[in-house]
Amino acid sequence: MGDADRARLGVGMVGYSFMGAAHSQAWRTAPRFFDLPLRTEMTAVVGRDPERVAEAAARLGWDSTETDWHRLLERDDVDLVDICTPGDTHAEIAIAALDAGKHVLCEKPLANTVAEAEEMVAAADRAAARGVRAMVGFTYRRVPAIQLARQLVADGRIGQVRHVRAQYLQDWLSDPATPLSWRMDKKKAGSGALGDIGAHIVDLTQFITGEQITGVTGVLETFVTERPVATEFAGLSGTGGDETGPVSVDDAACFLATMSGGGLGVFEATRYAQGRKNAIRLEINGSRGSLAFDFEDMNVLHFYDADESGATAGFRRIVVTESDHHAYVAAWWPPGHGLGYEHAFTHQVVDLVSAIAAGDDPAPSFADGLGVQRVLDAVERSAEKGIWLDV
Amino acid sequence: MGDADRARLGVGMVGYSFMGAAHSQAWRTAPRFFDLPLRTEMTAVVGRDPERVAEAAARLGWDSTETDWHRLLERDDVDLVDICTPGDTHAEIAIAALDAGKHVLCEKPLANTVAEAEEMVAAADRAAARGVRAMVGFTYRRVPAIQLARQLVADGRIGQVRHVRAQYLQDWLSDPATPLSWRMDKKKAGSGALGDIGAHIVDLTQFITGEQITGVTGVLETFVTERPVATEFAGLSGTGGDETGPVSVDDAACFLATMSGGGLGVFEATRYAQGRKNAIRLEINGSRGSLAFDFEDMNVLHFYDADESGATAGFRRIVVTESDHHAYVAAWWPPGHGLGYEHAFTHQVVDLVSAIAAGDDPAPSFADGLGVQRVLDAVERSAEKGIWLDV
Amino acid sequence: MGDADRARLGVGMVGYSFMGAAHSQAWRTAPRFFDLPLRTEMTAVVGRDPERVAEAAARLGWDSTETDWHRLLERDDVDLVDICTPGDTHAEIAIAALDAGKHVLCEKPLANTVAEAEEMVAAADRAAARGVRAMVGFTYRRVPAIQLARQLVADGRIGQVRHVRAQYLQDWLSDPATPLSWRMDKKKAGSGALGDIGAHIVDLTQFITGEQITGVTGVLETFVTERPVATEFAGLSGTGGDETGPVSVDDAACFLATMSGGGLGVFEATRYAQGRKNAIRLEINGSRGSLAFDFEDMNVLHFYDADESGATAGFRRIVVTESDHHAYVAAWWPPGHGLGYEHAFTHQVVDLVSAIAAGDDPAPSFADGLGVQRVLDAVERSAEKGIWLDV
Amino acid sequence: MGDADRARLGVGMVGYSFMGAAHSQAWRTAPRFFDLPLRTEMTAVVGRDPERVAEAAARLGWDSTETDWHRLLERDDVDLVDICTPGDTHAEIAIAALDAGKHVLCEKPLANTVAEAEEMVAAADRAAARGVRAMVGFTYRRVPAIQLARQLVADGRIGQVRHVRAQYLQDWLSDPATPLSWRMDKKKAGSGALGDIGAHIVDLTQFITGEQITGVTGVLETFVTERPVATEFAGLSGTGGDETGPVSVDDAACFLATMSGGGLGVFEATRYAQGRKNAIRLEINGSRGSLAFDFEDMNVLHFYDADESGATAGFRRIVVTESDHHAYVAAWWPPGHGLGYEHAFTHQVVDLVSAIAAGDDPAPSFADGLGVQRVLDAVERSAEKGIWLDV
Repeated sequence: MGDADRARLGVGMVGYSFMGAAHSQAWRTAPRFFDLPLRTEMTAVVGRDPERVAEAAARLGWDSTETDWHRLLERDDVDLVDICTPGDTHAEIAIAALDAGKHVLCEKPLANTVAEAEEMVAAADRAAARGVRAMVGFTYRRVPAIQLARQLVADGRIGQVRHVRAQYLQDWLSDPATPLSWRMDKKKAGSGALGDIGAHIVDLTQFITGEQITGVTGVLETFVTERPVATEFAGLSGTGGDETGPVSVDDAACFLATMSGGGLGVFEATRYAQGRKNAIRLEINGSRGSLAFDFEDMNVLHFYDADESGATAGFRRIVVTESDHHAYVAAWWPPGHGLGYEHAFTHQVVDLVSAIAAGDDPAPSFADGLGVQRVLDAVERSAEKGIWLDV
Repeated sequence: MGDADRARLGVGMVGYSFMGAAHSQAWRTAPRFFDLPLRTEMTAVVGRDPERVAEAAARLGWDSTETDWHRLLERDDVDLVDICTPGDTHAEIAIAALDAGKHVLCEKPLANTVAEAEEMVAAADRAAARGVRAMVGFTYRRVPAIQLARQLVADGRIGQVRHVRAQYLQDWLSDPATPLSWRMDKKKAGSGALGDIGAHIVDLTQFITGEQITGVTGVLETFVTERPVATEFAGLSGTGGDETGPVSVDDAACFLATMSGGGLGVFEATRYAQGRKNAIRLEINGSRGSLAFDFEDMNVLHFYDADESGATAGFRRIVVTESDHHAYVAAWWPPGHGLGYEHAFTHQVVDLVSAIAAGDDPAPSFADGLGVQRVLDAVERSAEKGIWLDV
Repeated sequence: MGDADRARLGVGMVGYSFMGAAHSQAWRTAPRFFDLPLRTEMTAVVGRDPERVAEAAARLGWDSTETDWHRLLERDDVDLVDICTPGDTHAEIAIAALDAGKHVLCEKPLANTVAEAEEMVAAADRAAARGVRAMVGFTYRRVPAIQLARQLVADGRIGQVRHVRAQYLQDWLSDPATPLSWRMDKKKAGSGALGDIGAHIVDLTQFITGEQITGVTGVLETFVTERPVATEFAGLSGTGGDETGPVSVDDAACFLATMSGGGLGVFEATRYAQGRKNAIRLEINGSRGSLAFDFEDMNVLHFYDADESGATAGFRRIVVTESDHHAYVAAWWPPGHGLGYEHAFTHQVVDLVSAIAAGDDPAPSFADGLGVQRVLDAVERSAEKGIWLDV
Repeated sequence: MGDADRARLGVGMVGYSFMGAAHSQAWRTAPRFFDLPLRTEMTAVVGRDPERVAEAAARLGWDSTETDWHRLLERDDVDLVDICTPGDTHAEIAIAALDAGKHVLCEKPLANTVAEAEEMVAAADRAAARGVRAMVGFTYRRVPAIQLARQLVADGRIGQVRHVRAQYLQDWLSDPATPLSWRMDKKKAGSGALGDIGAHIVDLTQFITGEQITGVTGVLETFVTERPVATEFAGLSGTGGDETGPVSVDDAACFLATMSGGGLGVFEATRYAQGRKNAIRLEINGSRGSLAFDFEDMNVLHFYDADESGATAGFRRIVVTESDHHAYVAAWWPPGHGLGYEHAFTHQVVDLVSAIAAGDDPAPSFADGLGVQRVLDAVERSAEKGIWLDV
C-alpha cells in the first residue's frame, strides 16, 4: 500500500524511560517490516523536564515535545496516546485521553487498584461506542512462541487444561544494597513483584488457555524491608549516602489458583531468584498434551502430543521462526534467525494499528487488564487473610 | 575387610513387587561395590502366596521364604526387617519388628496417618535405647547430585534460603482408561499424589535446606473420579470388564509453604503432567546463589554462585560423577559414566548398614518421616478448610 | 553528544534484499541506542529497477535512490558504500569505491576468489593510507556471547587451544523441490554452503581464538544436483514449471584443520541438516577450560573453568546480558531481555562508525576477509585432490 | 522358566579391573531382571596374582579363580570365555578359546591390528560352524536410546542418511600431570583415543545407519608427549617420582568419512575436551529427519521428523523408558526411572545368552569388530600420509 492511500495516525507518548524506549523502537520499526494500514507518525513525546524530554525526542525519534500530557489531548495531530508512565498515573491519563477521543495504548498493569481499572474500562466502553480504541500492553502475548501456544490450545491439541505452572523469576533485588526506586514504592507501583511481573504470567495464562482464574490463595513476602536511598535523591536531602528508606511493596508473590475449566494453577513472581534474569516460565498440562515455554529461550516452544505413538512421543522443541506457520515471523528473517525482547513491542504496534484501521476492538482490552487486576487484588487480600478468595 | 572380620546381618524383606525388586537389587549390589562393615545376607522374603513368593525369592536372590511376616520376628537369623508393603501396613510391621529387636528399613511414606507415624517414632525411640535402628526410605536423598546440593547449602554457598520450588510430575494417570490399583485406594495408600510423590519433595526440601516447613496452604484435586476395575479384580467379581470403581485419593496436590528460615515454598505433585515421566524438579534460591535439579537428568546439579564475577556468572551444569568430590561415586565408574534410578537404593543400604555397624542412628529417621507426614497432614486439612495451617 | 558537534556520514547502500534489509535496520537503529561519534544519514540506496528500488527506499528509510552504483561514487553526500550484493560483484564495487575515497562496508564472503580478494586488500591498503576505511561484514562477531568468548580466550581463561569444533547447520535445501536461486549458482555465489555459511565459522574460529587455520583437508558434496527452475525464471523461458537446472555449488562442506597454536579443528557447513534452522555451533577446548556456543540460544555462552574446584566444576550457562560486563548490551535492555539476530548488524554499524571517527582501521579488515577466503580456497582445492593443503 | 528347565552356561572371565567389574555386574544382574534361556553361572575369574584375583572373585561374585587363562579352556564347567584384558591379548585368548569350543565375549577393540582381527574372524567362522559363538563388546549399542535410533533409521523415519557427526569427548588426560598407564602405551593399547573411544563411535555409526564407512581422511595428535611414570612403577625402578616416559599413542583423532549410502561423516575422539566427561554425541541428518544423542543424557533420544507439520515440527526429546515401545526397559523400572552406564552391559549379557540358546550368531560379530578395526587402521594410515584412503 502506498503512503498516499493510508490515513495518518499521529502518536503521542507519555514517559520515555525503559518502556518509552521500547515503545519508540516499536513505533519506528513496525512500518519498516510490516505493511501497516495506517501511516503512523511519531508526533510528540511528553516529559516534565523540557531539556530531558527534548534530548529524548531527538534520541528516540519523536517530532515534537510537550511537558504536560494534557497538551496531547488538545493537539489535532495526535490520534493516539501511548502511556509509558508508572501505574499510579494510568487511570487519569487514559480516561482523559479516551474521553478526548484519542485511542490509547496503556502499559501494564492497567492501574494500581481495581477501582481505577473499573473506571478505565468504563471509559474504554464509552470510547468504543464512538470508534475510539483502548489496549493494555501485555506485550509478551506477541512473542511468536506464545501465539503458537494459544493456537495449539485453541485447536484442542492439549485437550482440557489440568495444570498451569507459571513463574516469573528475576534476581535484581537479591542484593540488599540495591537502592530504592519507584518500583519499590507502593504509592507509585501499586505492588511489587505481584503487579510488575506477576501480572504478566496471569495475563499469559488467561490468554493461552482461554480460561479465567476463578479463585486464589496467596502469600506475599518482603525479604529486604529497608534499602539505601538512591544517590541522586540522597544528595537532594543533604544527608549523604547512608540514608535508607522502607520498601513498601512485596519482593515475592506466590499463589495457588483454580481455573474456570477445572484445572489448578501455581504461580510465583519474584525478584530474588539468584541467577534467573528474566525467566518467564510457563508449563501447561492438558488431557491430550503439554506446553512449556521459558523466555530465556524465547524463540522456542516445547509441545508434547499425547496422541503421538509411544515410541516417539516426547516434548518437541519447536523453533518458532517458520514464515508459513508462525505468527509475525514472515516479516522478519529466515528460519532460525531469532527475534529478541523488543520485537514483541513492534508486534503490539502492528496489532493495535491494524485493529484501529479495521474498526475492531484490540486485544488485550482494558477489560482484560481489569481481569488481571482483579486476580492480583484477590491475591493481595487472600495473602492478608490467609484464605482462598474468589476472583 | 575380609568376610571373617565382619559380623553377619541377616535381612528379611516384606513385599516383593516394585519396591521389593528395587530393594533386592540394592541388597545384592551394595556389597559388590562398597566395603560394607557388616556381612549382609538376604535371608528371607515374605509374601502371602507361597508359590509366588518362592518364585520371587529365586528371581530376586533371597535364601528362604515366609508367608507371614510375623515369622521374621521369630527367626534368629533375621537381624533387619525391610518393609516394602503399602503404607497401611507399615506401622504394625515396623513397631512389632522394632519391639522384637530387629532393625527396620521402612519404605515411605512412613505411615498413612500422623497417629500411626507417632507410634512408630515412639517404637523407634524405644528401640534406639537398646541399640536397634530404624530408617525410612526417602531414597532420593542418596542421589549424588542431591547430596551435593545439601553440602553446598550446608557450606553456605547459596546463603539464606528465600525460595524453594519443588515439583514431582508424572503422567501415568492422565489416561482415564488406566485402571484402579491400590495406589488409588485411600485405605491402602493413605493419599494419592500427595503421599506417594509429594512426600519425596517435602523430604528433599527439608533435607537439602536443613530447614522445616512451618506452615502450608494447599489444594487437592481428583480429575478422574471413576476408573475401570482392573481385569484381575473384575474377574473375581464376575461382572466383566465394564465395571468401574471410585478413586478415593487425590490426583494432584499443590501447596504453598513457609520455611523455618523465612523463605517461601511452592510445591506440586501430580500424575497428570502429560509428557513428564518422573520429573522431580527442585530449585532453591538463596541470598548468595541458587541450585536446580531435575531427576530426568539425575547425574547433574545446576549451581549458580552469586559471588562469581558478573562476566562469567551463570548456572554451572555439574556432572556429579567425580570420585574425589562427590558422594558414593568413587565406588562406581569413571567420570561421566552416570548412575540410574536404582543406585540410590544401593546407597541407602550402604548408609543403613554403616550406621548399624557404627551404632549411630541412621537418617532419615522415623522422626524425619513423621515430620514429612505432619506436613502432608497439614496440607490435607488445609485443603479441606481453605486456610493456612501450621505444621 | 549533540548533533551539531558531530560530523555527517552519508551512507549509500547497494542491494536491498535480505542483507539490505538487515543493514538498513542497523543504520536506522544504531543512532537510537548508541551515542555514535558521527551523524549517520541514509543517503541513497541502489538497485537496477527504478520502481522496485524506490519502493525499497521508502520502506527501508533511504533518502534517495540510484539505479547505477557508480553514481554513488560521484555523489559528495555519500561518504560510505555499503555493499549488500552477491559475491561476484564485491570486488568491482569495493575497489572502485575505495579508490573514489569512499569508506566501504562489504558483505561476506569478501569475494568469490582469492585473486579478487587480494585485489580488494590492495585497494583497502591504498585507501587506508588516505584515511579511507574498509570492513568486511562478518556480523556474528558482534553477538555479545561471541565477544565474551574472545575475551575469555584473550584473558587466558581456557589456556592453550587444543580443539575447535565448529558447525553451521541449516536445512532449507533438504527438500529436492526447493527451486534454484543465485546461491546455488557458482558464478554468482562462488561456492555453496562453504562460502555462504562455512565462511562464518572460519572467521569466528580465527576471531575467538586469535589463531590462524594453517592447513586443511576437506570434502564437498552436492546431494541434489538438479533442481526446479524457480517459477519467475521458468515463465521467461516459456517452458513451464517442469524445467530443472543444475546446482553448480556444494550442498555441504566438511574439513579438518590444523591451527597455528597446535590445535585441531573440525568444521562442517551444510544446508541439509533436517531440523537445524540456523545452528552455528562452536566448541573450543583448551588446556584450562572450554567454551561452547549455539546460535539457536544466541544470548548464552557456556564456559567451563578447569581451575574451578572439582566439586562445583561444570559448564556455566552465562546469560550474556549484563550491562557492566558484556559488550554492547548496556545500550539495550535489562538483564535477561535478550537480543535477536539483527542486533549484531547494529553493533557492526556502531563499531564501523566508531573506527572511522577515531581514524582506526576497523575489524574484520579486508585482510581478515582474504584470510578466510584463503582457507575456503584451500578447502576447495583439497577436496578436489583428496590431500592436505597449507593455507 | 524354572531353573530345572534351563541348560547351564558356565562363564570364565579373564581380567577384573574396570571392564571386569562392569561385566561381573552384568553377569550377576541379568538373570535377576531378565528371563534368560540359560542358567548362567559365574564359574571362574582369571588373574595373574593369586591373592588379588581371590579378592576380586570374592568381591565380584565368581565361584573360583585361575591364574592362567589357559586353564579355563581345559575346564568342562566353563562354556564361555569373557575377555576383559588389554587389546594386545585379545587375539591369542579368543582364538584359543574358540578353538577349544568355548563361546567368547571379547571387549573392544577386537584387536590391536587388522591382521589379528582377521585371524579372530577366521577363528569365529570356524567356531560358528561348530555352534560356538563369538561376540565383541560394543556395549553402547545396548543403550535403549541407541536401539531406538537404529529402529527409526531401519523404519525409514529419517530417510537417506546425508550427515553423521559423531564425537566421543573426555577430558581425563587434559592435565599433563596425569601419569602414564597402559592405555597410553601403543604396544598394549594399539592406539590411544582412536581405538579406545573412537572405536565406539565408528561402531555406533555403522550400527545405527546400517551403512559402512567406505573412505576416510584423518589426523592424529599427541598434545602431551611425555608424562610422569605412575608411582607404583616408579617405585619399582628405584628412580623416584620425577621420572617421565613417552606417550606412544594419539591423544586425539579426527577424521572425515564417506558412507556407503552417499552421506558424509565427521568423527572426533579426544581425551582433551575439558569439561566433557564421557560425552558420546551422535547426530544423524537424513532426507526425512534427524536423530541426536548425547551419552551425558543417556536415557534420551532426540528425533526430528521432517514429515511433521511445519507449525509443530521440532526435535522431540524422547525419554526412552516406555515398556511397550523401547528395547530392554520393560525388565526394569517405571517410565522416567532412568538407567545408568552399567545397564548396557547387562543387556549385552541378555542378548549374548539369548543368541547362544537360540543357536544364532550374536551381534556385533567379530566381523563387525574387524570392520571397525579396518576403519581405525585406515584412519591411522591416512593420518600418516595425509590422503584419503578406502577402508
